[in-house]
Amino acid sequence: MEIQYIFELLGTYFFAISGALALKDKEPDWFAAMFTGFLTAIGGGTLRDVLLDSYPLVWISDIAFLYAILLGVITTFFFHRTVYKLKKTLMLFDTLGISFFTILGVEKAISLGFRPEIAAIMGMFSGVMGGVIRDTLTNEIPVIFRKEIYATACLAGAGCYLILDSFILRQWNLVISISLIVFIRLLAVSKGLTLPRLK
Amino acid sequence: MEIQYIFELLGTYFFAISGALALKDKEPDWFAAMFTGFLTAIGGGTLRDVLLDSYPLVWISDIAFLYAILLGVITTFFFHRTVYKLKKTLMLFDTLGISFFTILGVEKAISLGFRPEIAAIMGMFSGVMGGVIRDTLTNEIPVIFRKEIYATACLAGAGCYLILDSFILRQWNLVISISLIVFIRLLAVSKGLTLPRLK
Amino acid sequence: MEIQYIFELLGTYFFAISGALALKDKEPDWFAAMFTGFLTAIGGGTLRDVLLDSYPLVWISDIAFLYAILLGVITTFFFHRTVYKLKKTLMLFDTLGISFFTILGVEKAISLGFRPEIAAIMGMFSGVMGGVIRDTLTNEIPVIFRKEIYATACLAGAGCYLILDSFILRQWNLVISISLIVFIRLLAVSKGLTLPRLK
Repeated sequence: MEIQYIFELLGTYFFAISGALALKDKEPDWFAAMFTGFLTAIGGGTLRDVLLDSYPLVWISDIAFLYAILLGVITTFFFHRTVYKLKKTLMLFDTLGISFFTILGVEKAISLGFRPEIAAIMGMFSGVMGGVIRDTLTNEIPVIFRKEIYATACLAGAGCYLILDSFILRQWNLVISISLIVFIRLLAVSKGLTLPRLK
Repeated sequence: MEIQYIFELLGTYFFAISGALALKDKEPDWFAAMFTGFLTAIGGGTLRDVLLDSYPLVWISDIAFLYAILLGVITTFFFHRTVYKLKKTLMLFDTLGISFFTILGVEKAISLGFRPEIAAIMGMFSGVMGGVIRDTLTNEIPVIFRKEIYATACLAGAGCYLILDSFILRQWNLVISISLIVFIRLLAVSKGLTLPRLK
Repeated sequence: MEIQYIFELLGTYFFAISGALALKDKEPDWFAAMFTGFLTAIGGGTLRDVLLDSYPLVWISDIAFLYAILLGVITTFFFHRTVYKLKKTLMLFDTLGISFFTILGVEKAISLGFRPEIAAIMGMFSGVMGGVIRDTLTNEIPVIFRKEIYATACLAGAGCYLILDSFILRQWNLVISISLIVFIRLLAVSKGLTLPRLK
């Protein structure tokens, strides 16, 4: 629990940074950066919990998440030149973020008694919908419609977790499934891997 | 019940096809087509149920809906050239889809004890909001803002159902109200009917 | 209570007008104007109540809100030339609308037992998210990302209300906090005040 909680806060922090940076070319003000950071960080989990009727929402019942977001936005504001230079590092953090959020989302849906298919969708939503909401509000094409494999990596990791669930210890399953998402995503970006397309 | 259930699944299937096809000009990959098909099929009913606090959501408690969507997307992927040529047929299916979903949405709201005005709005939401969510995410102008009468046909059908409700048998009411929506919509498209505009 | 209720209805009426007018350059039809008026008026409060799991939604349990919206849209339709000329007056009404909705939203969250930080966010959501939803659906850049201080004024008023809450009578607090939002917003527009930006 302890370790998972720390990871959730870290994921929230990094998502807030990536959200706050998303508007950079539009020269956002303090509020706009904070708002997109906030939506990116809480959007996916909030959508999941609303769909599953799981209240109170995590960031509403535990104020630490709001402060993790605030810290992420402040980091962006004061160190945005440095952070921007670390774009590759950021991509890595985004990847870690979606990986953790996906698997934690799967676990939450399962623990609430939902079917594996629903849990996989909810995991994927937890990972990617914050970015989708952010992109929709800022008139960008949502990240999941872009070229390289993205949400599909989350679905693959979710499926892996659900299959291994009856066979191995939770700790190992977490490590394996999260690593699988990270691996697929990094491979997709470095090799330009895409799914087949409709033409 | 039996017949209504089959219609709901069929409506879901056709909505998934129309959603998966919506991105065609953007050459979507498997995931993007599946995602837009999914959102189009479940968006309206999900919004209605979240607003009415009616849980669990239909597609979460009955997995058959997910498989109807999956089937719709697979149909689109393997037969998309044929499906696309049948564009007029598809328009018909979309029309059938919004008609059924609207009236079933009205019935659900009434059965949950809500007022007729709210039931009419919830019926219309069930019919058209899936398409609105899809269009918003893909940066298109939502279908309800386009020229020919669309959501208004749903409102008219909903109103018709609510008025006839105390006078005739449910079966007849279903047939009449759904037909009214189909009739208005097809007339609007073939004659280019529009509502009065603000200038 | 009486007075607050009248203000809520008035705010809803003015929000519906501002929403219905938002599409003016696109020559919306009756339905589109009504739909955007509706979303603008109920969007913020609905999002707040869904996030806080506070059901039934206000406009669903009290039909008067729907009629206030309808009246606002009808006003817009019949008097839109006059209304449009009163653009500055409208801006004032929008400002009054966001101010009232923000503070009433804060009060609601507090009365439901939520923390002050959450109440401030929910107040701001009540005030501005209707406009954000409207702008997102109509492919505009949401009002909160535009230049002059907007949502930040709501946050400031919410903070003011929460701080004064233990010290002065509710009536005075309402007047002071709402006035603060109006004051900041009008000052921002007239002087072109903006927050610091990321560059």
